[in-house]
Amino acid sequence: MRLPIELSKAYRLVNHGPTVLVTSAHGEQRNVMAAAWNMPLDFDPPRIAIVIDKKTYTRELIEASNSFAINLPCRAQAEMVVRVGSSSGRELLGKPQADKFAAFNLPTFAASKIAAPLLEGCIAWLECKVIPEPAIQNAYDLFLADTVAAWADDRVFSNGIWQFEGQDDLRTIHHVSGGAFMSSGQAFQISI
Amino acid sequence: MRLPIELSKAYRLVNHGPTVLVTSAHGEQRNVMAAAWNMPLDFDPPRIAIVIDKKTYTRELIEASNSFAINLPCRAQAEMVVRVGSSSGRELLGKPQADKFAAFNLPTFAASKIAAPLLEGCIAWLECKVIPEPAIQNAYDLFLADTVAAWADDRVFSNGIWQFEGQDDLRTIHHVSGGAFMSSGQAFQISI
Repeated sequence: MRLPIELSKAYRLVNHGPTVLVTSAHGEQRNVMAAAWNMPLDFDPPRIAIVIDKKTYTRELIEASNSFAINLPCRAQAEMVVRVGSSSGRELLGKPQADKFAAFNLPTFAASKIAAPLLEGCIAWLECKVIPEPAIQNAYDLFLADTVAAWADDRVFSNGIWQFEGQDDLRTIHHVSGGAFMSSGQAFQISI
Repeated sequence: MRLPIELSKAYRLVNHGPTVLVTSAHGEQRNVMAAAWNMPLDFDPPRIAIVIDKKTYTRELIEASNSFAINLPCRAQAEMVVRVGSSSGRELLGKPQADKFAAFNLPTFAASKIAAPLLEGCIAWLECKVIPEPAIQNAYDLFLADTVAAWADDRVFSNGIWQFEGQDDLRTIHHVSGGAFMSSGQAFQISI
C-alpha cells in the first residue's frame, strides 16, 4: 500500500543513492527520464539536488512548471528504466504515441501537490518544487528543490527504513555505467 | 592493488550512491567525516557535488584549502564509519590524540594532487578541488568540485565497473538513517 511519508523523513527514501525516474508536466505535455545523479540536500526544510541536462525535454518542462517528481523504480522495472533512459520524449511529439508514458505503457496516478504524474509500480515518490537558482541551473545543470510531499510502498519501506528482505524484485536499482547496475543489498545495523 | 582510474570514468565510482568519508587538510590540521550526500555532477569535466555542513570542522579545512578527498569505505569498515560520523575532530584539538585519524587508528597515504590524506582500507578515492561558488556554499552547504585524480582497488573495480561478487566485506555501504545501512547488492546487466 502507498503511504505518505513524514517530510522530515523523506530524505531516507534516497539517502542510499538509488537511480530514479524524473517525471514532469506542463500544460498538455509530460515526460519521464532516468537520473542517477540525485541526493538529499537538507533534512529541514526537506530538500534534494538533482542534475537535469540542458538537452533533455524534461528540462524544458521543469523550467516551465518549476516542479517535478522523483519516482524510485524497482528491480522488476530495470529494463523499462533503461528504455526510458535511452530515448527522448521530444522525438515522440506529434506522433500517435505522443509521449513516453504511452510509448512504454507506463500507467500513472496523480501527485498531490504538483502537476507531474507519478509512476505506478515504483516503490517511492517525492513531489518536488524547484528552488529557483538560475545561475547554477545554467552553469551546472544542477537543480535544487523542496520536497513538498513523499510516498512509499509499505511492503518495502516501514518504520522509517527500507526493508527489502525476501522481496528482491522490489529492491531499488543503482546505475554503474551503460547497462550495468546493482540492486540494493543486505541491510545491516551498526550500534556503537 | 590500487590503480589509477581514467578521469572520464571516475563518476562510475560514486554513480551507485555510496556513503563516503571526506578527508581534508590545511597546514598541520586534518580531518575525516562521513557523508551520504554526494553525487556526480558531470562526466566531462569530471565533477562531483557534496553537502558539507557549516558546523563541521571539515568545512573549515575545505574552505581553507579548497580541496578534499572522497574515500569509499567498505562493509568491513562500517563500524568505523559510524564512529567517525558521530564525533567531531574539533573536540580533539589540543588533546594527545590530536585528530580523528589518531583517535580511531586510521592509517593514511598521500594523495597525488591535494593535501588531504587518503584512507587505507577504503576501496576507491577521488581527489577533488573545489569550484568556488560561495553563494551556494553559504546558502545550501553545497560544494561543487573538479575530480583531479581517482583511484580504485582492482579487486572490486575492474574493466570500468564494480565487481563485488564473492567479496562481501569489500562492498560499498549505503546509509539509510541512524545506524541503518545497506551494502551494495547483486550486479546485473540490462541489454535492450
